[in-house]
Amino acid sequence: MGGPTPYDPVEKLEVRMKLFDGGRAPNPRRVRVFLAEKGLSVPLVPVDMGALEHRGAEVAGRNPLRRLPVLELDDGTIITESIAICRYFEELHPEPALFGTGALGKAKVEMWQRRMELNLMASVAAAFRHIHPAMKEWEVPQIPEWGEANKPKAIEFLHLLDHELAEREFAAGDAYSVADITGMIAIDFMKPARIKVPEECTNVLRWYAALTSRPSATA
Amino acid sequence: MGGPTPYDPVEKLEVRMKLFDGGRAPNPRRVRVFLAEKGLSVPLVPVDMGALEHRGAEVAGRNPLRRLPVLELDDGTIITESIAICRYFEELHPEPALFGTGALGKAKVEMWQRRMELNLMASVAAAFRHIHPAMKEWEVPQIPEWGEANKPKAIEFLHLLDHELAEREFAAGDAYSVADITGMIAIDFMKPARIKVPEECTNVLRWYAALTSRPSATA
Repeated sequence: MGGPTPYDPVEKLEVRMKLFDGGRAPNPRRVRVFLAEKGLSVPLVPVDMGALEHRGAEVAGRNPLRRLPVLELDDGTIITESIAICRYFEELHPEPALFGTGALGKAKVEMWQRRMELNLMASVAAAFRHIHPAMKEWEVPQIPEWGEANKPKAIEFLHLLDHELAEREFAAGDAYSVADITGMIAIDFMKPARIKVPEECTNVLRWYAALTSRPSATA
Repeated sequence: MGGPTPYDPVEKLEVRMKLFDGGRAPNPRRVRVFLAEKGLSVPLVPVDMGALEHRGAEVAGRNPLRRLPVLELDDGTIITESIAICRYFEELHPEPALFGTGALGKAKVEMWQRRMELNLMASVAAAFRHIHPAMKEWEVPQIPEWGEANKPKAIEFLHLLDHELAEREFAAGDAYSVADITGMIAIDFMKPARIKVPEECTNVLRWYAALTSRPSATA
């Protein structure tokens, strides 16, 4: 896997850039789905996280936390954290608005993005990282008891979310947003974590089916 | 403790509101420090978290996650999540900008706000909640091994932060931001969690001393 893939901006960007990408991992995927929803194409530098390449000099020299994704601008400026990278693109390309519009709309997207991340994705990640044998080198020390404690936290949140989604189409209101991206990817992540959406959460299942049928879901 | 305290807007707000506040807990305090930096005064409804009042009907009816702070607008609209509430006020009162300015500035604040929260505050909170006997009813099950595993994570991040702060005054650059608020409060939270800033982290100590000397720190 070599350097950047071709760059095909939908509109002129002020700067050139490359995105160090981590494949199937949830956080790199959040940025790719976000870019797909924006209709943007950014040159990707693939990093093989399965081979722990994100701990190598190429990534660690740019992000001391040794995590992906990492966005590097042409002048060497680094932006890490998936949501920070998404916000950068939101500012450069405001349409479609994926962080909400107006003071209240933006607050609601922030609220739901955080709820999806801190209550669902974080619980699913803890279950996966502290229980799955493949994560032994990733999560030191692995504490299976903590992993197990997170499974009911994820389920409890899905029940709450189901109640909310009875009243509206998307997580933060009537428009698709970055909160839906985080939610969809957290639910996808439940498969390797061996947690299932409860059958009675019919609103969650309807919402998830709608999200995964969007072209961006394959990004 | 009764209803809202007097409301003294610096400029006219479009809506009236009340903020359900949780006293010394880190997340309610983040919003109060943010408001103090903005020069805003919002009517507070005190909730005694020590008496677990945040699990009562007044809070739970507004936030199913039963957490504070909770902002209620005059029409009953609810905004929860400290950072979402802060962003709401940032949109209504853009100056001073505490979420950054320009695409890159906003991305950097988001990046550092997340790093402070996910790598420092979350580690300190896990250490406190999973080890401290007073948290037995808050964190079920308490898993002391997980609490202990988080102490070195916090220390490792402080070393990383110290390296960064050698080059600049504030977390996200040359201007004070919400990332500094989260960082300051996370470090204050280290005391009950029984974690100390390493003596060699002189840049962190200089930065923390500057933050705590601001009038907003007492909010």
